Amino acid sequence: MKKYYLLTPGPTPIPPQVALKEALPILHHRTNEFAEIYKDVAEGLRYVFDTKNEVYTIASSGSGAMEAAVVNLLSAGDGIIVASCGNFGDRWEKIAKSYGVKVISASVEWGKVVVPSEIEKALKANPNVKAVFTTFTETSTGVVNDIKEIGKIVDKTNAVLVVDTVSGLGGQEFRTDDWKVDVVVSGSQKGLMLAPGLSFITLSQKAWKLVEKSQLPKFYFDLNKYKKSFLTNETPFTPPVTLIVALQESIKMIRQKGLENLWNEYKLLAKAARAGMEALGLELFGEVPCEVVTSAKVPEAIGGKIVKNLREKYGVSIAGGQGDLKGKIIRFAHMGYIGKADLLVGFSCLEMVLVELGVKVELGKSVAAAQNVLLKG
Amino acid sequence: MKKYYLLTPGPTPIPPQVALKEALPILHHRTNEFAEIYKDVAEGLRYVFDTKNEVYTIASSGSGAMEAAVVNLLSAGDGIIVASCGNFGDRWEKIAKSYGVKVISASVEWGKVVVPSEIEKALKANPNVKAVFTTFTETSTGVVNDIKEIGKIVDKTNAVLVVDTVSGLGGQEFRTDDWKVDVVVSGSQKGLMLAPGLSFITLSQKAWKLVEKSQLPKFYFDLNKYKKSFLTNETPFTPPVTLIVALQESIKMIRQKGLENLWNEYKLLAKAARAGMEALGLELFGEVPCEVVTSAKVPEAIGGKIVKNLREKYGVSIAGGQGDLKGKIIRFAHMGYIGKADLLVGFSCLEMVLVELGVKVELGKSVAAAQNVLLKG
Repeated sequence: MKKYYLLTPGPTPIPPQVALKEALPILHHRTNEFAEIYKDVAEGLRYVFDTKNEVYTIASSGSGAMEAAVVNLLSAGDGIIVASCGNFGDRWEKIAKSYGVKVISASVEWGKVVVPSEIEKALKANPNVKAVFTTFTETSTGVVNDIKEIGKIVDKTNAVLVVDTVSGLGGQEFRTDDWKVDVVVSGSQKGLMLAPGLSFITLSQKAWKLVEKSQLPKFYFDLNKYKKSFLTNETPFTPPVTLIVALQESIKMIRQKGLENLWNEYKLLAKAARAGMEALGLELFGEVPCEVVTSAKVPEAIGGKIVKNLREKYGVSIAGGQGDLKGKIIRFAHMGYIGKADLLVGFSCLEMVLVELGVKVELGKSVAAAQNVLLKG
Repeated sequence: MKKYYLLTPGPTPIPPQVALKEALPILHHRTNEFAEIYKDVAEGLRYVFDTKNEVYTIASSGSGAMEAAVVNLLSAGDGIIVASCGNFGDRWEKIAKSYGVKVISASVEWGKVVVPSEIEKALKANPNVKAVFTTFTETSTGVVNDIKEIGKIVDKTNAVLVVDTVSGLGGQEFRTDDWKVDVVVSGSQKGLMLAPGLSFITLSQKAWKLVEKSQLPKFYFDLNKYKKSFLTNETPFTPPVTLIVALQESIKMIRQKGLENLWNEYKLLAKAARAGMEALGLELFGEVPCEVVTSAKVPEAIGGKIVKNLREKYGVSIAGGQGDLKGKIIRFAHMGYIGKADLLVGFSCLEMVLVELGVKVELGKSVAAAQNVLLKG
């Protein structure tokens, strides 16, 4: 009988009409019927990524597409710049080092945003680096990096820009082509309102030139295979058919609503979330808050308990901190199929949990603060 | 309004009660609720694999788990023996070569089964090889290899035995521990009656010793990460939650029925399928037919049309040949959620398609032949 409310930054709630598509009798993947669906999904992904290039679907978690970027662009001994500001940015460095790629760091402390001028400096000091790897919205801390500005800098060099948009795509303005992003990776379980299990990657012509020279070993993530299969609306390996059929439905919903309209909704939710946190006296965390997740500092003594009690007592799932931030922050997601009422559920239950943990809280205050923002629209 | 009947060797039909689980509201993957499900699934996989060792779940197609076996066991320059007898066996060689592993072939022509004594010879001639890679049921041709016999041979050496059971697991007797198989890989979309999107791998202690020495680069498929996460009933990367929740249901069904009973059912279906093919005058293909898919030769002029017309006119999906066998054979699957009546649908529509293609066929003859076998039980 337990009822769950998901306010976590992935998985995010799945619209019932999307979820039900997963339950339809399965299609064989080497048929015209499935090829038509795959083609439609690929077109829809182009829209969501805002790119003229092909977007490939991989059967993996988002980290699989991240690895695909590394192993297809580089050779052992190549140098890259990693500009990380959190857990997922750090993952670029871990993957690269696993493959013997030299990492030059332009990273910043968790909670800060990466500094475009530092990337520029690193590129000047290391003119032979093949690529700059960074993150759009860094879910672990709740900040957003200035990809547009970074794109301008990297575009002037021989290096390509690789951006992880797993948590931000579909949730906040992101323009692959206009912002000169060469490689974009993403996942299915956040802004795309689907279950986890699919990852995505798109490459510019500049990036494909690097692919031609890449010597790192690869098989499952070899993008030449995906490019070739794409010609016949296929995937090189058996695709997760039910997830792709459901993705067609969620992309249809996104297109009907319009990306810009969606971004505006999440922007408003983000503003309401920040107002709610501040009304509770919780200091916002993160130098430049993104629009898909809001982080706030909490007393370390009760940090873990807030997350645990919210879930166990009220069925509300939010996220805590990762790594060094464990127990120190809480994170409310407002992306994908999360609406205004969900956010108010989050704040009203958070207030009760805080009271139960002995924190002095004026009941209804954070709800009212969020409501005020939402009413102004 | 088109109604589909799936008789393909993956994806195979999904029981409605399993498919509907995919549509349930998504759970967050870092919760006790999901950990309990994951733990139950992992226990169930142990039962299906018939092993005391841990079975890890990876978000990927079956080929992902195959790559995981290669990159976790080996180092560049290592030698291995590949005993292939078809398309999927050949994949071992392709993956290994992508990673600079030296391949000694003990392979046979497509349609034949691998020869245990040839593997023994190759092991004696190359005592330093680290592993023998082969296939249980080779879906591309419809044969089954004698893994038990190969296990006895490899067990006496320092090499480990790695077997791809993507198409056979759950469909035909396979015993990981008793047969001394060190590494087994499999997938979700065949005998496990689920959608594609999950792959599985299990390793013996002998195999883990090789993992310790392995130098091939890896990140996403690094099994040490999966082993570590397994301790807390987690996966290192966001798992395909809806697929795993559905897998719990299909494994429950398999356990209720009992693996041995399932194997007997498919054995009977296989016998009926062979009788049906022979009644049509179609010569069976494959030296030792497996019990999950039946292959038969068809006149090359109409090979492709049989598959196409079955699907387009009657909604019946069967498989044709792959690679050099394209247009030369047809394949009927009888694994997972495929029952007696499905097989009769396949033969009755196949008869009509053959008549339409100008082949002389006595209507009802293959159906009767299959019925006779099924009635005898």
